[in-house]
Amino acid sequence: MEEALVRAGERVDELYRCGYRIIQDPAKFCFGMDAVLLAAFARACPGEAVMDLGTGTGVIPTLMAGRYPGAHYTGLELNRDMAEMAGRSVRLNGLSDTVEIVEGDIRCVRGLFARGSFQAVTANPPYMKQGCALTNPDSARQMARHESCCTLRDCVEAAAYLLPHHGRFYLVHRPGRLPEIFEELRRVRLEPKRMRLVHAFAGSEPQEVLIEASLGGGEGLRVLPPLFEYEAPGVYSAELIELYGNAGAPEKEA
Amino acid sequence: MEEALVRAGERVDELYRCGYRIIQDPAKFCFGMDAVLLAAFARACPGEAVMDLGTGTGVIPTLMAGRYPGAHYTGLELNRDMAEMAGRSVRLNGLSDTVEIVEGDIRCVRGLFARGSFQAVTANPPYMKQGCALTNPDSARQMARHESCCTLRDCVEAAAYLLPHHGRFYLVHRPGRLPEIFEELRRVRLEPKRMRLVHAFAGSEPQEVLIEASLGGGEGLRVLPPLFEYEAPGVYSAELIELYGNAGAPEKEA
Repeated sequence: MEEALVRAGERVDELYRCGYRIIQDPAKFCFGMDAVLLAAFARACPGEAVMDLGTGTGVIPTLMAGRYPGAHYTGLELNRDMAEMAGRSVRLNGLSDTVEIVEGDIRCVRGLFARGSFQAVTANPPYMKQGCALTNPDSARQMARHESCCTLRDCVEAAAYLLPHHGRFYLVHRPGRLPEIFEELRRVRLEPKRMRLVHAFAGSEPQEVLIEASLGGGEGLRVLPPLFEYEAPGVYSAELIELYGNAGAPEKEA
Repeated sequence: MEEALVRAGERVDELYRCGYRIIQDPAKFCFGMDAVLLAAFARACPGEAVMDLGTGTGVIPTLMAGRYPGAHYTGLELNRDMAEMAGRSVRLNGLSDTVEIVEGDIRCVRGLFARGSFQAVTANPPYMKQGCALTNPDSARQMARHESCCTLRDCVEAAAYLLPHHGRFYLVHRPGRLPEIFEELRRVRLEPKRMRLVHAFAGSEPQEVLIEASLGGGEGLRVLPPLFEYEAPGVYSAELIELYGNAGAPEKEA
């Protein structure tokens, strides 16, 4: 079965959770630690419908299917080749009844899904604004890193449309954009309720922020203790190793 | 000289910086660790005019006068008794040429000072919204803890009026109000530029956040490494002890 699902140039990476694996093309875009952190920060209950915006390889719904069984996951992906490859990972993991990959544009969710039809939405959107750095000539990587096809606002507006009252939005992004993130969230009544900063070491500045927002939720943010990736140079922290299913963490995606 | 400046029921606390001391009335409001953290987080250059909004005992301008000599500090205080006591601390420290205490209302700065006349503004405002908890019957304590006489918005609007273009605003507040803090700051074009969370321990949620904002500054927030107050139960961290002038830190004000 695997031979029929994996194409030339692609590789199959272990997720160390329920034996699930992800097909990736190293020449295109491979998922990073931020996706794994978000899948562990987010929550889903049995019976819930969960949407992952810009799912890429499908790693977030696959990891969440392992962590939170009994929910149904949808991954929306604009890039046709990525969506097709993510669909093959779903079949490789025997998750066709649990994870659905939909090819489509975050900016057009109104034409694809009913309002309020997902109890939770996750997103690991591009971190960089257009024009902030040299754009990557490879299209899939470009789309994953720069806001060429999906801005923070696009993401937040899609989440607000897809969620019901008190639905949960889970976002991973750069701490440097926190003021803008909070403003965009509150603009559509997504109130930030839980936040965690992720640092390489205890003495270093954070490189990621994990945020949970609630549609129509009341004011009051809970800031969690910081997450440190390393205890010492080259030594992952116990918490990070647990996040990766006690199997050691991969190299950070640059 | 001290006898003439200190009244019955008051005490004199060492600041462990330049030999400066602060007169306090334990029956009213005594300054906390948050004021010391803010005075260390803020910056002032020689020749600058620095305003402390709601200065209370005058501890923030006094500590900053020790850290950043050559600047001129003004402390604005609404409570007449507190302003009078802060003025006596200034005289006790021989700082009459450096620190001026002004009795007045943050909500009326337009009538007291010229627009843009301070290069930096500090504020350690009340953390709690009116009606959030039982109000304290003692007036000075009530004013320091609850937004009865000064809301976050009052503070932020006063800072925006007092600062010139690219003037700096330094704020200490509760992390739980971060989304509202950022929104209020940006509403008056005070862009958050630097932020630090303060935790008791590495594994605990932060109880304070220090923020620097720039009037008319560009987007982009630098989040600093977290500050931990304790290394172990009862053992202050090396950084906290350094903040307190290598003399051990007092008990946290409840």
